[in-house]
Amino acid sequence: MVVSPHAVGIDIGGTAMKIALVRADGSIACNTQIPTHVAAGAAAAVPRIVAAVRALGREAGLAPEALQAAGIASAGIIDFENQLVLDAPNLRVWERHPLAQEVGRGLGVPFRLENDVNAMAYGEWRCGAGRGARHLLCVTLGTGVGGGLVLDGTLYRGACGAAGEVGHITVNRDGPACRCGSTGCLERYVGSRYIVERAAHFLQRDARPSVLRGMAPVDISARRIATAAGDGDALARAVLAETGQWLGVGLASLANVLNPERIVVGGGVAAAGDWILEPARTTLRQRAMSIPGTAARVVPAALGNHAAVVGAALLALARVEEERA
Amino acid sequence: MVVSPHAVGIDIGGTAMKIALVRADGSIACNTQIPTHVAAGAAAAVPRIVAAVRALGREAGLAPEALQAAGIASAGIIDFENQLVLDAPNLRVWERHPLAQEVGRGLGVPFRLENDVNAMAYGEWRCGAGRGARHLLCVTLGTGVGGGLVLDGTLYRGACGAAGEVGHITVNRDGPACRCGSTGCLERYVGSRYIVERAAHFLQRDARPSVLRGMAPVDISARRIATAAGDGDALARAVLAETGQWLGVGLASLANVLNPERIVVGGGVAAAGDWILEPARTTLRQRAMSIPGTAARVVPAALGNHAAVVGAALLALARVEEERA
Repeated sequence: MVVSPHAVGIDIGGTAMKIALVRADGSIACNTQIPTHVAAGAAAAVPRIVAAVRALGREAGLAPEALQAAGIASAGIIDFENQLVLDAPNLRVWERHPLAQEVGRGLGVPFRLENDVNAMAYGEWRCGAGRGARHLLCVTLGTGVGGGLVLDGTLYRGACGAAGEVGHITVNRDGPACRCGSTGCLERYVGSRYIVERAAHFLQRDARPSVLRGMAPVDISARRIATAAGDGDALARAVLAETGQWLGVGLASLANVLNPERIVVGGGVAAAGDWILEPARTTLRQRAMSIPGTAARVVPAALGNHAAVVGAALLALARVEEERA
Repeated sequence: MVVSPHAVGIDIGGTAMKIALVRADGSIACNTQIPTHVAAGAAAAVPRIVAAVRALGREAGLAPEALQAAGIASAGIIDFENQLVLDAPNLRVWERHPLAQEVGRGLGVPFRLENDVNAMAYGEWRCGAGRGARHLLCVTLGTGVGGGLVLDGTLYRGACGAAGEVGHITVNRDGPACRCGSTGCLERYVGSRYIVERAAHFLQRDARPSVLRGMAPVDISARRIATAAGDGDALARAVLAETGQWLGVGLASLANVLNPERIVVGGGVAAAGDWILEPARTTLRQRAMSIPGTAARVVPAALGNHAAVVGAALLALARVEEERA
């Protein structure tokens, strides 16, 4: 039987929940994924989560006392004091349900609920691309653009747990409308749907041949553009370069305000790697002030899809340790 | 003889040094100002500073042991570990001189050097408009636009002491060139010289009568525009409203990233008060996400010109207390 301390990390998304047993060093003992079934409600999810964790425990040969904590990561704004999800567009009917409390009670262990991007930032910081940095900004590029901050060696949440909304800093005041109600937000230029929109513009105005021309417009995704760029498609590369330049505008602002030593970029769009990151780095150096611009190293995330479960589990273990101390 | 603990705060500017004896509660016992004489060098300034502090001590009837620390605030980027000013455009020949060390030795007390905007933020946080806030952004509006951050109840410096350069976040990527080398920075829209520039544009295109029309262009300053606005000048008010809108664009980005509960606005331009702050608040609410936008209360600074000396003195006292603990 395995008796060393473990925590379970649970990352709740709109379609699936990722669940992993995580060791104290952040490595994953074993993991699984179960459907979320949003419409069935949060209460119905609890026994399914508990059963999945128990099954993982058996799979890993874990002694019952080895499971010491449960970390739950959720999209949305978290009421940290009451450990409730306040505002999560993809989990509306689950809002304000004491899910973390019920999972903790079901498993008989202390629990901790955290915003998923914060959990990801913490995971990358503790055992991913952010290791060793005292001041870290983690940016996720996907449909939405989010961020998590580790400042002075601590996860920073702000006054209401809403800090890190880096997708909604203005990069162009009179730019196009953003879903958040503002205009010219960073997300409006680097979110995946806007990369696709950019590709459509390039296809219209740029005569170069491209594999993207052979695709139905509905089939063009940020991921396919990234694949094309990797395969040498010059037009796809130009689309990603322009995306990276906008990302760099935002990162320069963030470097000037936060002076981080590292900026970790993750999320689905980050799969485009240096086709986006290299122009972002160049623009960051050009636009940020020299000291913060030089200090901020921009690196790809290292933990991929697992960052949030690992981070949530390690945050829960950290809470147990704090309470012991 | 006064025996309660005091610290001296010294705020070093390009033309004058403000010096104040500060009590542990942040109140000023007495204060003075002496010319900086930049060209004479930093070493020559030390005996003048020490003599001025001694004179203040006599004026306040301070027992020698009551002076417990010296806090020095300077423009520029501070090497906090080595307590040196690295980069200060108005004090070039003083850079890297161990001024704080020499003042501390001359006075026989522990010393602490801090960036002037950080000292101001700390002063406003401890005993000014930021009192009671756990997460605070302090913005100074003047020729330059700077910022200081108190996050989770601690002054935040970032990886190289360069955090808080809020004047150089981008609000309009393709906007006019900024002195920092970037384009469309917040400072480029709300720094005092650009307010004057905006007034000149308004005077050309806006036919309304205005007291500013009677002034020689060289006499129009941000302060005079503020005075005119206070006296009912509609054109001056329009100039400040547009300035405040740009400020609000920047503050919305900062609220989304930092989720502060308070934003304290100080500096010379802030004398325009609600003629700038009210449109800034409106724009902040319109552009920030709802939770951080509602949480961030925008208030004028309370300590005026004294914020940096008070903050520097209290930071030095805090250092003495930390070392005792």
